[in-house]
Amino acid sequence: MKQLAISPLAPASFPLLPNIAGMNAATYSLGMYKSDRDDLIVVSFEDGASVGGALTKSNTRSCDVDWCIGALKSGLAKGLVVNAGNSNAFTGAAGIAKNDATLAKFCELSGAKPENIFLSATGVIGVPVAADLISSKLDAIWPNLSKPNWEKLAKAIATTDTFIKGFGKTIEIDGQKINIAGIAKGSGMIAPNMATMLVYIFTDAKISSALLQKMVSQYVETTFNAITVDSDTSTSDTLLVFATNKAGNEIVENSAASRVFADALNECMLDLALQVVKDGEGAQKFIEVKVAGAISVSSAKIIAMAIANSPLVKTAIAGGDANWGRVAMAVGKCLEPINADKLSIKFCGQWVAKNGGAAIYDEGEINKLMAGTDIEIFVDVGMGKSEFTAYTCDLTHGYISINGDYRS
Amino acid sequence: MKQLAISPLAPASFPLLPNIAGMNAATYSLGMYKSDRDDLIVVSFEDGASVGGALTKSNTRSCDVDWCIGALKSGLAKGLVVNAGNSNAFTGAAGIAKNDATLAKFCELSGAKPENIFLSATGVIGVPVAADLISSKLDAIWPNLSKPNWEKLAKAIATTDTFIKGFGKTIEIDGQKINIAGIAKGSGMIAPNMATMLVYIFTDAKISSALLQKMVSQYVETTFNAITVDSDTSTSDTLLVFATNKAGNEIVENSAASRVFADALNECMLDLALQVVKDGEGAQKFIEVKVAGAISVSSAKIIAMAIANSPLVKTAIAGGDANWGRVAMAVGKCLEPINADKLSIKFCGQWVAKNGGAAIYDEGEINKLMAGTDIEIFVDVGMGKSEFTAYTCDLTHGYISINGDYRS
Repeated sequence: MKQLAISPLAPASFPLLPNIAGMNAATYSLGMYKSDRDDLIVVSFEDGASVGGALTKSNTRSCDVDWCIGALKSGLAKGLVVNAGNSNAFTGAAGIAKNDATLAKFCELSGAKPENIFLSATGVIGVPVAADLISSKLDAIWPNLSKPNWEKLAKAIATTDTFIKGFGKTIEIDGQKINIAGIAKGSGMIAPNMATMLVYIFTDAKISSALLQKMVSQYVETTFNAITVDSDTSTSDTLLVFATNKAGNEIVENSAASRVFADALNECMLDLALQVVKDGEGAQKFIEVKVAGAISVSSAKIIAMAIANSPLVKTAIAGGDANWGRVAMAVGKCLEPINADKLSIKFCGQWVAKNGGAAIYDEGEINKLMAGTDIEIFVDVGMGKSEFTAYTCDLTHGYISINGDYRS
Repeated sequence: MKQLAISPLAPASFPLLPNIAGMNAATYSLGMYKSDRDDLIVVSFEDGASVGGALTKSNTRSCDVDWCIGALKSGLAKGLVVNAGNSNAFTGAAGIAKNDATLAKFCELSGAKPENIFLSATGVIGVPVAADLISSKLDAIWPNLSKPNWEKLAKAIATTDTFIKGFGKTIEIDGQKINIAGIAKGSGMIAPNMATMLVYIFTDAKISSALLQKMVSQYVETTFNAITVDSDTSTSDTLLVFATNKAGNEIVENSAASRVFADALNECMLDLALQVVKDGEGAQKFIEVKVAGAISVSSAKIIAMAIANSPLVKTAIAGGDANWGRVAMAVGKCLEPINADKLSIKFCGQWVAKNGGAAIYDEGEINKLMAGTDIEIFVDVGMGKSEFTAYTCDLTHGYISINGDYRS
């Protein structure tokens, strides 16, 4: 597959990420790619870390995802191993054998228990790898575990991402600094495979796994579960948040400290989620879809996601067309309660439809706004007071080329 | 918008459709298009017709669709008026005024009651037309009502269809001939509007509206509700079946005659539904997705439609790639009960995955089959005995060009 052009929505550069005390990391090249790029990351939390996460609910999820769902229940993380180049999905007994060998070797080197080690993989599916693919390299990798080089870590998990994704923030609670660093990959594509989103966030905050999980579960709904590139769900989607408990006082529920930390975690999750959308396959424009006036948040979400997933809406945006008819169509097809006579739609702040009919607007002005890279769609469905915002990208020839042009 | 190339999946020619006694029809040019093409059809059933139908469930459906839902309750059809070029959707009071004027004039000329006249429209949305757009022309059209010219009727409702769609069949029940003739349009697209499917089937069979409706409601699930081009639902989708009661003995429920007629009606509905898919925007390949081994028909349908709607599956097919990983992904994302360890997938009759892992197959042979225009995907989800078959087309650069390239 040829090198893809960097997304026009990419940030200017990889941001500065703070160090996280209590974690050591290394990258390695397993040789899964033709180039000699790194394709493995190994992280060790020698003193353990609290952990929370969200994994794909797909019924055909990979055995690595299944493993993480189990490991999350232990409430303690001692390590993380992620490889790119092979997703270990639909590999049956061979996939489990590879994970068992990796876990056994990691435990031998660290003294940890297997249920405290987290595993992820992304890449081709249905292709079994040797059981010792990773385990046979851990002896050599172990002495290299050190202060994380975030850019190298982000690069090692990338597949066809056109830019690497990171977010860093340092907050102060009770005069003590707390650091957050996150990396993500997605939604690139490796033929013959599917898009996968992997996200790892690290913090030195002192917080229980239970509270961390509660925050992750809450914020995932409005961040990673509010984005869509093409409505398809990977078998490997993984979000894990690790807290090494090295900084500050313990963050307890319902405290001022908890709110400050939660806000920063939410900011990190949203920022990385939007970076994933901005690297959506073929993306030329970033689209924010806000639905208001719904009878409930879940109803608003169904409508917002229907708009964000509509190929007709996404191709219209690609063409710079403020096509509110297609938005109205997407609203209608969800069968959620709406008042069609009050349906009102804004593109980039300009009303294009009001109370169930066309609004009078300056077409030249709208066309100028629609030619930009950031498109806002606002829809009031006229029924209630609930809102939800979804994020997506446009649907372009680039998407078809990346996913369909094998024979060209 | 430039003329689109005829779909490579189009039939060789428009078929021969039989005459239907008891109906007269005419076409007319309202001038909705720059060319002088016909864009209106008027049908009169002087002695009335039984009627059954299925209309879009969209919450933003057009006022014409709302009107037909009401008219169906009358159980009697005296007329049908369909225009292309303006969908009369999101036109508020103006849209209703136009329909009222059309109905009033039709009733004046025919002596019918308004509730027995059926109305459809397809074209741009949100653009009100003059109230007398159609009513002012009916005096001139009325003397032209005569034996239907099916090709002219099919042409008059077409928008950006690349071929016109018809189906004809004559069956014999108790030694008496019964005729069926159907026309359809879709899923072309007029900027800045959405795809719309309109289907009208006429028969001279003697059958009650109640029984006709029962058959339509049953077969629509496996025909028009089993097809998808891009997962988007029009605000105007309409299927109406009219029976003029002019031929044969009355067809009563649970009789041998009823089964013969029902089979022919089902054949007509499936044939027209597949023609709509074969004219899907940008379609280069026709795809049949059969899901077996599900716990219920509705579960099988959810899975089959998820595969048929998956952009990743559809782009893979466009690229001639037997990408079973993407099919497994689409199966998983529905969250329907499946047995991932038994999941088995065939492309064009060849097993590519068996019992949750890659099968051994001849790649050259598969690639040859995948290069064809008719692609079969068979998925056994390993849980039960229920099946469903969905029909779709591939997702190509043509789709993006038709729907997104306004500025190019």
